[in-house]
Amino acid sequence: MEPDRRERVIAALTADLPEGVLVTNRDSLDAYRWDRANDPDAGVPLAVVRATSTEDVQAAMRIAAREGVAVIPRGAGSGLSGGSSAQDDAIVIALDRMRRITIDPVVQMATVQPGAFNVEVKAAASEHGLWYPPDPSSQEFCSIGGNVATNAGGLCCVKYGVTTDYVLGLTVVLADGKAVKLGGPRLKDVAGLSLTKLFVGSEGTLGIITEIVLRLVPAQRTPTTLVAMFPTLSGAIQAVLDIKGAMRPSMLEFMDGVAINAVEDMMRMELDRSAAAMLIVQSDEPEALAAEQIAAVEVICEANGATECYATSDPDESEALIEARRQAIPAVEKRGALLLEDVGVPLPRLGDLVLGVAEIAARHRTEISIVAHAGDGNTHPLLVLDPSDPGQKERADIAYGEVMDLAIALGGTITGEHGVGRLKQPWLGDYLGEDVLDLNLRIKKALDPQNILNPGAVFGAI
Amino acid sequence: MEPDRRERVIAALTADLPEGVLVTNRDSLDAYRWDRANDPDAGVPLAVVRATSTEDVQAAMRIAAREGVAVIPRGAGSGLSGGSSAQDDAIVIALDRMRRITIDPVVQMATVQPGAFNVEVKAAASEHGLWYPPDPSSQEFCSIGGNVATNAGGLCCVKYGVTTDYVLGLTVVLADGKAVKLGGPRLKDVAGLSLTKLFVGSEGTLGIITEIVLRLVPAQRTPTTLVAMFPTLSGAIQAVLDIKGAMRPSMLEFMDGVAINAVEDMMRMELDRSAAAMLIVQSDEPEALAAEQIAAVEVICEANGATECYATSDPDESEALIEARRQAIPAVEKRGALLLEDVGVPLPRLGDLVLGVAEIAARHRTEISIVAHAGDGNTHPLLVLDPSDPGQKERADIAYGEVMDLAIALGGTITGEHGVGRLKQPWLGDYLGEDVLDLNLRIKKALDPQNILNPGAVFGAI
Repeated sequence: MEPDRRERVIAALTADLPEGVLVTNRDSLDAYRWDRANDPDAGVPLAVVRATSTEDVQAAMRIAAREGVAVIPRGAGSGLSGGSSAQDDAIVIALDRMRRITIDPVVQMATVQPGAFNVEVKAAASEHGLWYPPDPSSQEFCSIGGNVATNAGGLCCVKYGVTTDYVLGLTVVLADGKAVKLGGPRLKDVAGLSLTKLFVGSEGTLGIITEIVLRLVPAQRTPTTLVAMFPTLSGAIQAVLDIKGAMRPSMLEFMDGVAINAVEDMMRMELDRSAAAMLIVQSDEPEALAAEQIAAVEVICEANGATECYATSDPDESEALIEARRQAIPAVEKRGALLLEDVGVPLPRLGDLVLGVAEIAARHRTEISIVAHAGDGNTHPLLVLDPSDPGQKERADIAYGEVMDLAIALGGTITGEHGVGRLKQPWLGDYLGEDVLDLNLRIKKALDPQNILNPGAVFGAI
Repeated sequence: MEPDRRERVIAALTADLPEGVLVTNRDSLDAYRWDRANDPDAGVPLAVVRATSTEDVQAAMRIAAREGVAVIPRGAGSGLSGGSSAQDDAIVIALDRMRRITIDPVVQMATVQPGAFNVEVKAAASEHGLWYPPDPSSQEFCSIGGNVATNAGGLCCVKYGVTTDYVLGLTVVLADGKAVKLGGPRLKDVAGLSLTKLFVGSEGTLGIITEIVLRLVPAQRTPTTLVAMFPTLSGAIQAVLDIKGAMRPSMLEFMDGVAINAVEDMMRMELDRSAAAMLIVQSDEPEALAAEQIAAVEVICEANGATECYATSDPDESEALIEARRQAIPAVEKRGALLLEDVGVPLPRLGDLVLGVAEIAARHRTEISIVAHAGDGNTHPLLVLDPSDPGQKERADIAYGEVMDLAIALGGTITGEHGVGRLKQPWLGDYLGEDVLDLNLRIKKALDPQNILNPGAVFGAI
């Protein structure tokens, strides 16, 4: 950026924002350049706006619009697809200070600012005997705004749906700096286009979310949890299909042998290291029915070759088993740098996907571990690599693309819950096809004609 | 329309559509001019295309686009807001012949054509032990395509959500005649903008839906149903709030004294004609818990002055009680022509809405009966009038607008589940405000630059 334009933008931000909101110090800027995708192409932003209010976001957005400067919205920086990677000369709008949470127990809703962590929303709801279900594995350190921006999923989605199912209203700052309220604390509302739903999952490309009205539900009952170990991948996958055909579990998770071993290395839970796969299944029905369902799950698992099944309705023990699944990605990450996939397929193709990924791994001599929200057909193949070995990096990059190509060929998606961001952007067109991509772009252009809202994310160059 | 243009359009439709699809006979056209809103301004279309396939819709749409002719999509014609009112010289695209339903029990999804009735989808699902929850009172004669176009609700939504919560994928014919597939049989998918959700509830203004992929859930358990009669409106409303604060019922419906009497006139169910209000509450939890919940509901109702509570877990008796609620609108309709509202408010304002409507009715000497999906804050004030009395019609029209103004003033919506259509279009801007209406229009223009898709519905003149 030309030095005088740069100075003009900084001066305008300084003038229009409250003291302490603007960050321009180079060392401080570095903390806002990367999300968990660690995009090597992340640039150096011009400034970071650590907004404290919708008005702060509006002030920054108005200046960005006037000067044609790109804006990168950012929550907790826990994104896995590079949706918050900074760009050179952009303004990063960080929502990490906006963390207010208000619960209305009568209407069973939460009004939250985007920077609040997912677990903080859950905790605030539980004080009133209520529950906010979506539970990405990163729930301890991901922001609710990021969850909305990516339409995040999690472990309980197999029964309770994803983020969009809980979003009733949004306050959004648009590309021109105007703030609008979409939806609100109404359980049913069909007046006008479903804009609330359109902004959910738009990854900061249509506007910046500054407040969210969430639907809450009564507290979950204490679930009964079953862990089953399988000697074969195919046995575990068939058990997933059989379980889904027989009931609606509240969790149905999968880990392969590599993940089991990585978790065992980290957590020492006495998991069977020789198993090819492990399923974690939960029922949160009332006690008698839950016991009945979990007994049926055990029969299904054993019929599909499970060597060991262990069930518990003790809350701490249940939580420890689920924590094993939540820690699978960090555990595998200890084996090397990760390239993290998020491909999903229609459930009957789950086996083809899992076996196909193994074939890709073998062909490219790349280690790929799979953990999955199996009941949703949503898998996370984890490509493990030593980034200092250029040959390995190159092979992993090719395998990364081939996994997405495979998912597309199986009628699946390139991303089930993490978002496209910058890392998966090159595959979006292959997945959507020309006509649907064009529809996306027409809406993007209608709402952000200058392409200043998170440019490069989702859509790449426009 | 100029005669030569008219001839050219008819000739093109005749040439490009299979035999038997095009209807141009004036007497036959009349059957496609009105939906249940009986819009007095409905025009006479140029032709009706009774499509048998996505390709038929595309062929008609391409001609409409080339000639700049308006297209009115139409399902079963059961709409209550005039969303399918014909216009002079428009092409009505009727989807009533496209009724195929395919159930995949493994993935628990249905692939349906838009003309299938809601109950037909339910019946096909139930053959596999599955359930499609959304249940508008018109379920016996409304089409699933219309349900998607309006994001229809119903009675079980208080626990099970609305249509959009079950739509995973759509095939849509766009304004230029291209057909696109959005979403599909994947339980989680965040690649690109949430276009599937945008098209749900768009009332035919963005495209014509020709196929739908629906999520199904396991069959509902036999519910326990409680009916409670209240001597006061306020007692019934407080009971609604108390029940919602204590549990998540699978149904929580309200009828006022006028509706109770109208239903009793029609169905002879020995309802207490002197009651001011009646609640119908259901729990579909497993038996022991359902009994416990319904007992708690009874305590709440009695504490709020209920004079009579009757509970049953007999399926036929339950169904008869719910049928009373479903028949409330047709029953009240026997008292005169109806102007049907669909206003919704945040739950704590439900009492203000119900009492405010009574005040409007008294002030304009108009009978307004209220039935409501009370647990969602979604009410249907029914304005009863003798249309042959011009004074009464005029007063009712004013009251109709004042009810919407009241809902807006209470932080509510002008339509919770029926759609804006043509009847509520004049109030959309008041509800959305200028900026959000502008956002709606930008998307409409981006997707339908000629404004040929259901013009006049939702947005009025553009």
